[in-house]
Amino acid sequence: MSRIPRIVILGAGYGGIVTAIRLQKHLNYNEADVTLVNKHDYHYITTHLHMPAAGTDNPENSRVNISRLIDEFKVDFVKSTVMQIKPIEKKIILEDSTLSYDYLVVGLGGEPETFGIPGLQEHAMNIRSINSVRLIREHIEYQFAKYKGEPDRLDYLTFIVGGAGFTGIEFVGELADRIPNLCKKYDVDQKLVKIFSIEAAPNAMPGFDPELVEYATNVLTNKGVVFKLGTAIKECTAAGVELATGEFVKTTTVIWTGGIRGNHMLDQAGFATMRGRVKVDSFLRTTEYENVYVVGDCSIVMNPEGKPYPPSGQIATQQGETCAYNLIAAIRNTPPKEFKYINKGTVASLGKREAVGMVGTRKVKGNKAALLKKLVDMRYLYIIGGIPLVIRKGRF
Amino acid sequence: MSRIPRIVILGAGYGGIVTAIRLQKHLNYNEADVTLVNKHDYHYITTHLHMPAAGTDNPENSRVNISRLIDEFKVDFVKSTVMQIKPIEKKIILEDSTLSYDYLVVGLGGEPETFGIPGLQEHAMNIRSINSVRLIREHIEYQFAKYKGEPDRLDYLTFIVGGAGFTGIEFVGELADRIPNLCKKYDVDQKLVKIFSIEAAPNAMPGFDPELVEYATNVLTNKGVVFKLGTAIKECTAAGVELATGEFVKTTTVIWTGGIRGNHMLDQAGFATMRGRVKVDSFLRTTEYENVYVVGDCSIVMNPEGKPYPPSGQIATQQGETCAYNLIAAIRNTPPKEFKYINKGTVASLGKREAVGMVGTRKVKGNKAALLKKLVDMRYLYIIGGIPLVIRKGRF
Repeated sequence: MSRIPRIVILGAGYGGIVTAIRLQKHLNYNEADVTLVNKHDYHYITTHLHMPAAGTDNPENSRVNISRLIDEFKVDFVKSTVMQIKPIEKKIILEDSTLSYDYLVVGLGGEPETFGIPGLQEHAMNIRSINSVRLIREHIEYQFAKYKGEPDRLDYLTFIVGGAGFTGIEFVGELADRIPNLCKKYDVDQKLVKIFSIEAAPNAMPGFDPELVEYATNVLTNKGVVFKLGTAIKECTAAGVELATGEFVKTTTVIWTGGIRGNHMLDQAGFATMRGRVKVDSFLRTTEYENVYVVGDCSIVMNPEGKPYPPSGQIATQQGETCAYNLIAAIRNTPPKEFKYINKGTVASLGKREAVGMVGTRKVKGNKAALLKKLVDMRYLYIIGGIPLVIRKGRF
Repeated sequence: MSRIPRIVILGAGYGGIVTAIRLQKHLNYNEADVTLVNKHDYHYITTHLHMPAAGTDNPENSRVNISRLIDEFKVDFVKSTVMQIKPIEKKIILEDSTLSYDYLVVGLGGEPETFGIPGLQEHAMNIRSINSVRLIREHIEYQFAKYKGEPDRLDYLTFIVGGAGFTGIEFVGELADRIPNLCKKYDVDQKLVKIFSIEAAPNAMPGFDPELVEYATNVLTNKGVVFKLGTAIKECTAAGVELATGEFVKTTTVIWTGGIRGNHMLDQAGFATMRGRVKVDSFLRTTEYENVYVVGDCSIVMNPEGKPYPPSGQIATQQGETCAYNLIAAIRNTPPKEFKYINKGTVASLGKREAVGMVGTRKVKGNKAALLKKLVDMRYLYIIGGIPLVIRKGRF
């Protein structure tokens, strides 16, 4: 290559934005052309989205304009939607143009995994973007407004959350906090409102510490959440949800948090995938093309026992750092570094002033865990935007 | 009558609540039993409702708890829904009990008059209660949230207001003010939003001063409202509105403000009605039963030229005052007084800081008229709740 290499980053989620920010910090002048492509002109903080979805926080607190994070002299930002990845031609087809690359970073994020359950695609909403959580928030409030004109429609006041993983649990915690306010606002008897957390696995938060899971389900049960564990959803219709037990729960609101798969464009581009996710090598590259890196929910990284780490903002952030390092190494022809995930702790919020978490082998719960959650959030804001962003978006 | 007479007031709208308040003020101890029946435990200020409907004001500012207006030692308040009026038996059937009366005041308010236009009943919303305006507000915001997930659905961003009378005009003024905020909140290009004011009559605000009507339509046109005057709605469907011109406007939001009729229970009770409204005598009594009074939108009062006054909060308030006087006169066997409507001025708001009004023969417009509108609102608050209510609910 005699001209300077072109790096294209697809997606400004955790993995993509951190890659871009690290590249703009560490690349020298004229060492590479970096282009960041994203559907929106903002980055959003996916691990906050359960709050604006429930309406307990403003969606504005969960997003940051990309122009505030990116130095336009160093990184070109293209607001567009990716239509196709062509790794052989080293080209990206956008909805309105085409980009060529020498190095590609795919950070397109996940898509809801519905496991083929009929009707979920059509009738359930997902917590996965600013647009999707604004829809959920407005949908929920609209049900209260509609109920007042049709008081026999108790299905308007029944809320089903499919999946009791971290997102599902955090969302029901917020929703349970929101309900009393909505009841007051719309003169609705709180006893009529039902929140169901439905999970196919025998326990909530599968894989998490059992003692903390028990604490979490107790906190949420006391807030009025009804758990249906070990209960698969068989079908979702416009009228409600049929459970594997045969029970039919009438509802106009289903939020599906039961699973994440990788972006469908990776399959289409010919990469070997598992549920749309690409198993990357230890340098975060695809096995097919060593100039293509995958970060975040589209990638799979194995833990030392050979099992995939669950996708998370934390792992994506760390991948972005390693990915930027390895891109610079490739350009400079220096040795890349292996990706090693360091779990700095995992905290799930359970609504206001309640959370559960693990830091190393230490269990944290209650108000202390809720504070820890805030610290984790702020650390991420600091990583991407420094102190000014912590001050602007951190919720103290 | 040896026992003390029983007065039952149906409805706590303008007419009913003012009757009740005047009775509690002027009746002596043990002179009568007064019972006020209302569906909700609050009175609402119908002439404010265009604001919470558009979302430019909180619905709480348009209602007052009845317990704050009524002295429970003097007036019994029954929260219930009236099912049937039986004037021969002097009985009222409520959803859960029965009341007997010696004197009855019917102030049940109006119902939307759809003039038989197909689909309006099923697909249009109405500005007529706290519940209905909360529905409109949430419905509108929900359309913006839905649009972001289905960007080809421009019908989500098209708002049709049927009827350009006072309510329709005041509502489009508020809605036009709200749109820029909603566009900002949902990242929607404002150019995509359309507000149509559709009126079958050749002019907006039929019967109002032509110069002020022209001023009003200009103000609203500049705010982005598109008027289709002299254009009847032929049919309303779930997909939109078909106009008499043959044009079909796709929309998911139709607000019908085109007409008001009296409550259907008056027909059912055997009173002679015109569009559900009862032509009362000069003492506000029905011609069939001199112990039955009708006030507000359920009544018709003729002007000196023999034409009915259009229903308004102002006329209902004045009727309430006369009605209470005449009830006391009937009990005390003193002469009743004839109802004389005194038009103290009419003002229509056109959104923020804009209005048009007539006070006597004087025309007022712009900011001055908007201030006048506030004064009119406050005077009403003063009539029903005195200075404390003006301070609590008056929007300065």
